[in-house]
Amino acid sequence: MSTRVALAQINLMVGDIAGNARRVIDCAERLRGTADIIVFPELTLTGYPPEDLLLRPVCDLRVATALRDIAAAATGVTLVLGYPAIRGGVRYNVAGVLRDGVVEAEYRKIQLPNYSVFDERRYFEPGANAVVFEQDGIRFGLTICEDVWFDMPVQRAASAGAQVLLNLNASPFHQGKAVEREALVADRAARFGVTVVYVNLVGGQDELVFDGGSFVVDARGQVKHRAAFFEESESLVLIERGIPQSGALQPFLGDEEQVYRALLAGTRDYVAKNGFSSVVLGLSGGIDSALTLAIAVDALGADNVEAVSMPSRYTAEISNSDARRQAQQMGVAYQSISIEPAFNAFLDMLSDTFSGTGPDVTEENIQARCRGIVLMAISNKRGRMLLTTGNKSEMSVGYATLYGDMAGGFAPLKDVPKLLVYRLARWRNRNGEVIPQRVIDRPPSAELRADQKDSDSLPDYPVLDGILALYVEQDKSVEEIVAAGYARPIVERITRLVDRNEYKRRQAPPGIKITRRAYGRDRRYPIVNGF
Amino acid sequence: MSTRVALAQINLMVGDIAGNARRVIDCAERLRGTADIIVFPELTLTGYPPEDLLLRPVCDLRVATALRDIAAAATGVTLVLGYPAIRGGVRYNVAGVLRDGVVEAEYRKIQLPNYSVFDERRYFEPGANAVVFEQDGIRFGLTICEDVWFDMPVQRAASAGAQVLLNLNASPFHQGKAVEREALVADRAARFGVTVVYVNLVGGQDELVFDGGSFVVDARGQVKHRAAFFEESESLVLIERGIPQSGALQPFLGDEEQVYRALLAGTRDYVAKNGFSSVVLGLSGGIDSALTLAIAVDALGADNVEAVSMPSRYTAEISNSDARRQAQQMGVAYQSISIEPAFNAFLDMLSDTFSGTGPDVTEENIQARCRGIVLMAISNKRGRMLLTTGNKSEMSVGYATLYGDMAGGFAPLKDVPKLLVYRLARWRNRNGEVIPQRVIDRPPSAELRADQKDSDSLPDYPVLDGILALYVEQDKSVEEIVAAGYARPIVERITRLVDRNEYKRRQAPPGIKITRRAYGRDRRYPIVNGF
Repeated sequence: MSTRVALAQINLMVGDIAGNARRVIDCAERLRGTADIIVFPELTLTGYPPEDLLLRPVCDLRVATALRDIAAAATGVTLVLGYPAIRGGVRYNVAGVLRDGVVEAEYRKIQLPNYSVFDERRYFEPGANAVVFEQDGIRFGLTICEDVWFDMPVQRAASAGAQVLLNLNASPFHQGKAVEREALVADRAARFGVTVVYVNLVGGQDELVFDGGSFVVDARGQVKHRAAFFEESESLVLIERGIPQSGALQPFLGDEEQVYRALLAGTRDYVAKNGFSSVVLGLSGGIDSALTLAIAVDALGADNVEAVSMPSRYTAEISNSDARRQAQQMGVAYQSISIEPAFNAFLDMLSDTFSGTGPDVTEENIQARCRGIVLMAISNKRGRMLLTTGNKSEMSVGYATLYGDMAGGFAPLKDVPKLLVYRLARWRNRNGEVIPQRVIDRPPSAELRADQKDSDSLPDYPVLDGILALYVEQDKSVEEIVAAGYARPIVERITRLVDRNEYKRRQAPPGIKITRRAYGRDRRYPIVNGF
Repeated sequence: MSTRVALAQINLMVGDIAGNARRVIDCAERLRGTADIIVFPELTLTGYPPEDLLLRPVCDLRVATALRDIAAAATGVTLVLGYPAIRGGVRYNVAGVLRDGVVEAEYRKIQLPNYSVFDERRYFEPGANAVVFEQDGIRFGLTICEDVWFDMPVQRAASAGAQVLLNLNASPFHQGKAVEREALVADRAARFGVTVVYVNLVGGQDELVFDGGSFVVDARGQVKHRAAFFEESESLVLIERGIPQSGALQPFLGDEEQVYRALLAGTRDYVAKNGFSSVVLGLSGGIDSALTLAIAVDALGADNVEAVSMPSRYTAEISNSDARRQAQQMGVAYQSISIEPAFNAFLDMLSDTFSGTGPDVTEENIQARCRGIVLMAISNKRGRMLLTTGNKSEMSVGYATLYGDMAGGFAPLKDVPKLLVYRLARWRNRNGEVIPQRVIDRPPSAELRADQKDSDSLPDYPVLDGILALYVEQDKSVEEIVAAGYARPIVERITRLVDRNEYKRRQAPPGIKITRRAYGRDRRYPIVNGF
């Protein structure tokens, strides 16, 4: 009447069905004799989210082949894993129980999320029925991710006799989600009187990071075990007569640490899973590129990071020296390339065309784009992915140059508001200066014309970020934001800028979702928009 | 027992709820006395697709205000229009019947498409019930777009006594869709013995073009009326004892013409609805930019188009002269700006960094990106939207430079395969040369190194486009494409290129969907992809 359940919190590769199957089989080989049941994340075989790969008929063939191989390895240990499956001509999001060499049972996900970043109704039909299997005298039910956010699937499993619910997840990170998720599952476990084994995916996939933190709550809602966040783990929990015994309780992470770890995981996986091993970035002496450099070094190692500063006539000497100092402190390859020759060449080439006009944002953009060309040339020549350094506040209002500072393969700070950039920089410096204090203290400037400051064009960041959180993340109207205490003309201007700059965001590189609502698949706005 | 139905095939503005309501009221004022019922397209008030604007609570307030205003105008004429509506805490896609100053009835869309470009399950819950109203002794049922692609909603309306079905649509264009759509609806009308009045939206919204072509089929499946394609119209159909009388039958358009008209409509609306009146584009002497120029001129007028050729050391003199000749023939502003000074400046700036390495794609990309900077500078300085000229074949395999020739606000040919580019060019020349014949006849080249030809890097376009159609549009596997007669090494290389270049497409400007499966919201692939 006791059994050992392993929570296989692993980092999978979307689309690599054969490779993910090998991970499952390796895990089974390694844990056979130690664990009686191994539980894997949602859609183990395809990774999550597989998107339109699911629509390729050959995807189903590969899943079927993988399942046969895995079933053959399911001897002496029960494997519970996720995959898409067409049954009766209809595609379901399935959790299969593989035991004694066969697929013994399949549970079909009931609640299919189709909001935020999720599109599961595009691919799947909902299931309806509980699935319960017995092992070592204990009755196990199955659910998949969104299912446990609703009463019905849990209730059905409990009614069908489940003492322990094995819940397979691919639950993406945002700030505070881990605490929220655990509290919700604990509540449901207590209400329906079932133990829940919650196994989450870990690692980055395009704009999403899965934060792990798999856990076990008993039927009174007590957390008995919690795995680490943002790393792979295979933890074992002993279940006796349906009651989980206490295991390790890894701590929740603080505000800044959880975001920073998400940025590391997202950056590391995006770079590596796309076949790159190193990155290059522009280091301006400003806070965004300074934090991006720290993330890149922490994620990939100093040897795999190259920093380039690209001064112009408008660059303060303090910017150059702070950039150089940080690069040296962090031990990364560093060079400085003036953009003046190219900038002058373009001004000459366009002098006839532009004769009779005064300087405007055109000349500022040319500078930013000259930097984009230099960085992309280094990226192309050396096979290093270019990281772009813009933050969410800039992306929101379009305070960035398309094909200039927005150029790059990945944007680690894309969903990080400016005030949080500062908090993360201070947090990263907590054990010693990594980002020069002066970079944190200086008023931010794009340095694209003489004596430029961000505050010439934008409200102070506390005001800007406050308005953006209400408008973008909470869908508040102009009226409501004004009622919250912001000046109407500023609210009107900022919300208009957000709407009008959708076209820039549509051409931005991917970045890591860390807020409740990121740009990209999470917030789907029209470009042509008369709202 | 007779009534006059107006098919209001109009071009709406997504998000501009007050403006769209004014269009409806204007139409009611104008047609009162001429028409008894006016039928508008699906989601008339928000335009289609409104995407996440639907999630803003203020959207519902604006719709409610607009409905009150429109209801007040609904006297002496019945208005049937579409809007989102929260009823009992749930959002539906609704067709409302406004008569005698009130909203008399509301039908809730039953079939919510959630495939291809559609995400309606993200926003709406399905309705279940038929709605039938009587006017002049005739019983009218309601359905919305996808509903008539299924039997059930039509059957329910017929069972509820509907003689005439008013179907509100926002049905986006792809090649051949108009014929397919009409045949399907005619079949359903005949099977259920109802007349169908099919009113479609017209005009462009981001990557979609709605082609109009509204029609009426009688209960035997005979088409009695067809409105023009790609233009606004308000046509009247007389219905006597449930039987529609014959009206005008605008012709279907031929293959090339329908695509060309879609490209015009999409380009015109994207430019104008974003507040621009003019465009600039790079004219290389090649076929893609030649066709894009013709589209721009036909869509916006020669006065609103500026062409720039940007030769380098690798540009053939024939390219320059063909570009100049076409610009003159079409009467657009034209200039030539050599990129050599900027190209040389970059080579000098990077000479230390790149010392010891040979030339590769890096130097090719620098040239393309210098052109991108010149064009964006002209775009910025003059407030002209930059059109980018790449086609679907290039976008598929990544034969284009990010931030170089891919730079721009809109990509008219983004979904047009290269062979179709040629067909469209020949079709556009049918009444006299617009695109110099030599441009059509020359072997295509990117001219980024000496004696370069597309065929150095890519299979011939008939092979490339054949493979791409099978892989991208039909989801065929490598095995199936090889079985269709293509050489395995080429199939493997091309399909791998498609997968690996998703990152480029993700940063591409929007363009017009004309095939069954366009890149963008239509084909959602992961960037990190081990498939």
